[in-house]
Amino acid sequence: MTFYQRLRSIQRTNKSLLCIGLDTDINKIPGFLLRSSDPLYEFNRRIIEATHDLVCAYKVNLAFYEAAGEQGWRTVHRTLAAVPAGIVTIGDAKRGDIGNSAESYARALLDDYGFTASTVSPYMGEDSVTPFMKNREQGVFILAVTSNPGAKDFQYLKVRGRPLYETVIMKTRRWNRKRNCGLVVGATRPAELRRVRELTADMPLLIPGIGAQGGDLRSAVRFGCDRRGEMAVINASRSVIYASRGRDFARAARAEAIRLRDDINRYRDSYF
Amino acid sequence: MTFYQRLRSIQRTNKSLLCIGLDTDINKIPGFLLRSSDPLYEFNRRIIEATHDLVCAYKVNLAFYEAAGEQGWRTVHRTLAAVPAGIVTIGDAKRGDIGNSAESYARALLDDYGFTASTVSPYMGEDSVTPFMKNREQGVFILAVTSNPGAKDFQYLKVRGRPLYETVIMKTRRWNRKRNCGLVVGATRPAELRRVRELTADMPLLIPGIGAQGGDLRSAVRFGCDRRGEMAVINASRSVIYASRGRDFARAARAEAIRLRDDINRYRDSYF
Repeated sequence: MTFYQRLRSIQRTNKSLLCIGLDTDINKIPGFLLRSSDPLYEFNRRIIEATHDLVCAYKVNLAFYEAAGEQGWRTVHRTLAAVPAGIVTIGDAKRGDIGNSAESYARALLDDYGFTASTVSPYMGEDSVTPFMKNREQGVFILAVTSNPGAKDFQYLKVRGRPLYETVIMKTRRWNRKRNCGLVVGATRPAELRRVRELTADMPLLIPGIGAQGGDLRSAVRFGCDRRGEMAVINASRSVIYASRGRDFARAARAEAIRLRDDINRYRDSYF
Repeated sequence: MTFYQRLRSIQRTNKSLLCIGLDTDINKIPGFLLRSSDPLYEFNRRIIEATHDLVCAYKVNLAFYEAAGEQGWRTVHRTLAAVPAGIVTIGDAKRGDIGNSAESYARALLDDYGFTASTVSPYMGEDSVTPFMKNREQGVFILAVTSNPGAKDFQYLKVRGRPLYETVIMKTRRWNRKRNCGLVVGATRPAELRRVRELTADMPLLIPGIGAQGGDLRSAVRFGCDRRGEMAVINASRSVIYASRGRDFARAARAEAIRLRDDINRYRDSYF
């Protein structure tokens, strides 16, 4: 099954465009988990158990696991093993390097960890991103418009009268020979999201910035989906996984995930 | 000691602008090392022992250690412990992320591993790079013009009549409040290197692409150095560390490092 097919299939099966970001921080998880031998995994496992019927994807932010040092690698492996088959897993590492290095990063994410997809930064160009596009079954999301204030420093600079991120999109369309490319567009950028979707037909868009970052959910659905109301992957991290800091954290995460999934589906019903 | 001072000091002490890149690949190191419990470390340790009086810096390409999985983290720690004090260590990870994630990556590289400097990608803008600039004693090299073919995809696009990488440089100058910023400029780009140095006075330039990638050493020295013939950090990886694949690999690496250091110093004598 190609990456696009797999994404569409799980979005239909679970009736959900929601992606939960496992930005799991040792300083934020409930204290009682710290007695476990692998607290980050224990946290992730319970979040996954409580939410896997509500999502199309989990996004694992590698920054948090690298900060855990030696143990981090094992925690990521165990976390991925806890995700039921069929659900997309995104290794959010925003790598960008060349030649042997890009090949190594791609191997680590796609072969060793076995993520379904990864995120990459476009600055170094084609030979820095193609190692992540080798298998039709595994996708790659290229950074286009990000949700942070610094996005304005370079992404909006005018190149032949158009913002730089449009060049990123046009190049990505050209690189998308195996139909496994997607783009990252922040939910805090509704006007740009609309423009990106105009340029990309059915390409998957990974849309972070909902929840803690204050992105607009309605616009994420309205402008992020393809014509069939699919292929937007709407990510929420902290607002879901830290919905409660107590013993009921998994139940609270489930409640928040249901709320988001249902809000998303209500907007889908009204726009598609 | 600030990062700039530290770099200048070791360049003077060792009379060298050479940086050796520890792109250590399990498939390329001599076979007899594979019997060791940590072959990548054993290789690095011997390279460092054989070359530490010839260099100003070692660059550790994290891609190769991540590919080694769980063991990789420990190998990086042990490798850094084998580098004599005073020599600059560069964590070449080209990270680029925001908020908590950028903070986590910076902590992993600068606090946990304890690198003297790191490399970052500029695409996400100011808030993605500032976490790497917090300490005056630790530097950051921001990607400007890279040595690979894909560099042309975005870095050369015209923004107000000038290539995008010039905007990266001007922004980096503005962000350089603690005087610990540098730039990455490929040795395969002599004309651009000259232009970058015109715009940056004494900012350190990390110049990869010598050796296996075919960059021009003479131009790297002539255009990469500041007015005093310093602050260029000229990196060679494969051509040094794999100079021989046999039992004499460390001796062969030393011979190649001497050759490069001396060539660099000859060019310095003729231009500065």
